[in-house]
Amino acid sequence: MQIERPYLMFLGDAADDLAAKTARGVVEWRRDWCLGQLSLAGCKTSLSLPEMTLENAVAAGCKTMIVGVANRGGVIPAPWIAVLEQALGAGLDIASGLHTRLSDFPGVAASARRSSRRLFEVRHTDNTFAVGTGTKRSGMRLLTVGTDVSVGKMYAALAIERELTSRGVSADFRATGQTGILIAGSGVAIDAVVSDFVSGAVEALTPDSDPGHWDIIEGQGSLLHPSYAGVTLGLLHGAQPDALVLCHEPTRTHMRGLPAYQVPDLKRCLDVHLDAARLTNPRARCIGTAVNTSRLGDDQERQYCLNEAAQRFGLPAVDPMLTGVGPLVDAIL
Amino acid sequence: MQIERPYLMFLGDAADDLAAKTARGVVEWRRDWCLGQLSLAGCKTSLSLPEMTLENAVAAGCKTMIVGVANRGGVIPAPWIAVLEQALGAGLDIASGLHTRLSDFPGVAASARRSSRRLFEVRHTDNTFAVGTGTKRSGMRLLTVGTDVSVGKMYAALAIERELTSRGVSADFRATGQTGILIAGSGVAIDAVVSDFVSGAVEALTPDSDPGHWDIIEGQGSLLHPSYAGVTLGLLHGAQPDALVLCHEPTRTHMRGLPAYQVPDLKRCLDVHLDAARLTNPRARCIGTAVNTSRLGDDQERQYCLNEAAQRFGLPAVDPMLTGVGPLVDAIL
Repeated sequence: MQIERPYLMFLGDAADDLAAKTARGVVEWRRDWCLGQLSLAGCKTSLSLPEMTLENAVAAGCKTMIVGVANRGGVIPAPWIAVLEQALGAGLDIASGLHTRLSDFPGVAASARRSSRRLFEVRHTDNTFAVGTGTKRSGMRLLTVGTDVSVGKMYAALAIERELTSRGVSADFRATGQTGILIAGSGVAIDAVVSDFVSGAVEALTPDSDPGHWDIIEGQGSLLHPSYAGVTLGLLHGAQPDALVLCHEPTRTHMRGLPAYQVPDLKRCLDVHLDAARLTNPRARCIGTAVNTSRLGDDQERQYCLNEAAQRFGLPAVDPMLTGVGPLVDAIL
Repeated sequence: MQIERPYLMFLGDAADDLAAKTARGVVEWRRDWCLGQLSLAGCKTSLSLPEMTLENAVAAGCKTMIVGVANRGGVIPAPWIAVLEQALGAGLDIASGLHTRLSDFPGVAASARRSSRRLFEVRHTDNTFAVGTGTKRSGMRLLTVGTDVSVGKMYAALAIERELTSRGVSADFRATGQTGILIAGSGVAIDAVVSDFVSGAVEALTPDSDPGHWDIIEGQGSLLHPSYAGVTLGLLHGAQPDALVLCHEPTRTHMRGLPAYQVPDLKRCLDVHLDAARLTNPRARCIGTAVNTSRLGDDQERQYCLNEAAQRFGLPAVDPMLTGVGPLVDAIL
């Protein structure tokens, strides 16, 4: 699966900035691929891209319309469906990050068939995977892990890929969640894979590569999150990471969605992930922490937090959005 | 989902005893539910049940035909299909442990619809589950864990349920694999659940119960098996076990299917499982080991192995098939 670019970003009638979070992530990391946006009446946000009709977009060379927007109340409104059908008819593929499958709408499915266009439903996977084997693969791998869900694992991975590439090192970002897949143009929504095949799916996602090549793998969940730890462990074993980066959000008081569960101590969290990683790669090591300090006060307070993390582990501590990830990349090269 | 009993056991043209391993497990643990067997020409094994036609079986009160037999080379032969269709027509439900879905055969699906009969495909699950919450549930739970796959986790759990019940303690065996589901009449094939929902599926499988009730949960895989550890971790977190029993097969030299991976040290294996279990149940403790000693020499050698395990951990060590599980049940009551 490879989503063709460049992209037209579909915003529908998004209620606010948050509803277009996925689309915004794609623009942030792949601005060059995003030629324009298409909003409908009532849209309350913008990606600051040129507004385009479907005809403009096709003329400009767009290959895929990206649906990186949340639908209100789980219902996909009729005006969206009409535009999706027209987009397929106009020759665009569609890649959707919605929970609802677009192929469940008969008109959309028929339009895709009629136009020989593809529907990428990136929260789902229809691929079949082999069971993981634990066999060592060539090339180098880095995986971002974390104290909780939504602490910046995807951003850290993307920043590391960008820094490596800018230094001339061969690197690929390997996506395991819907936003990441739209950014990478390919990947596997790992939490949608049947549990028996999670480690095998990750082995397929990050195959043998040149010895000096780095696959930078987007982590998911946390081994200490009671809802998702199984996904995290399958991902960790399949990834066989040489390097782990521990991601953290210091203002969070409890595990996301679970008020009864405190965020784990950083050191314990690191030990648990390292210990598990060494089952399939005994050489796995942690190279540093990526702390999302955006909710702390001023830059001085944020830097203080990073210094503290660095001293505690004797490893580089960065905030990808504040300091960049240079010290992490220094540590692996 | 509840598979109705009693059962007619379908053997098809099973090539040898091993091909009917699942059916044999059902007869071993639920002899009273199994009224007869149905073999086809060329069948090379027997369950030592009365041979019955479909008409005999229906007349005897059978409600469900159990397909607990492996098909040769992954192909389901036409004579099987004919009998499956006739069984549905005769008023029997069918519960199948095959990898292939029976509902993929148009004739079988049509026959089930026409007769308003049910097809239980116990290696699959069409249920949807919520994400796990980690919320503590009432009642007591025991989970069997292990050094590897296929080391006796289901047998140990069934033996413990039987011993508890024989002592008048309220207990349920909770099945997580296909043979267990046919034995319990219900359950969830946990390795067929989408990874995001594994812990939630186990929470649903073993709900709140009376304070003195024990759910005895069938374990799967091992936290130290690179192929399946994610499944095991989701199961462990969802189970919230008060008691763990560590299962082991002492003659195994490497992890099943993975010659490059040694079977882990028992103590390390126990620590890893206990540590992970305590995330959702801080009171989790190991109450003993269940060792499958059947491949060792005479009873003296087998007993020596158990004594050694008992001394090492200071906990009861049993072989469910040699010594029974009395000491494990003593430990939890």
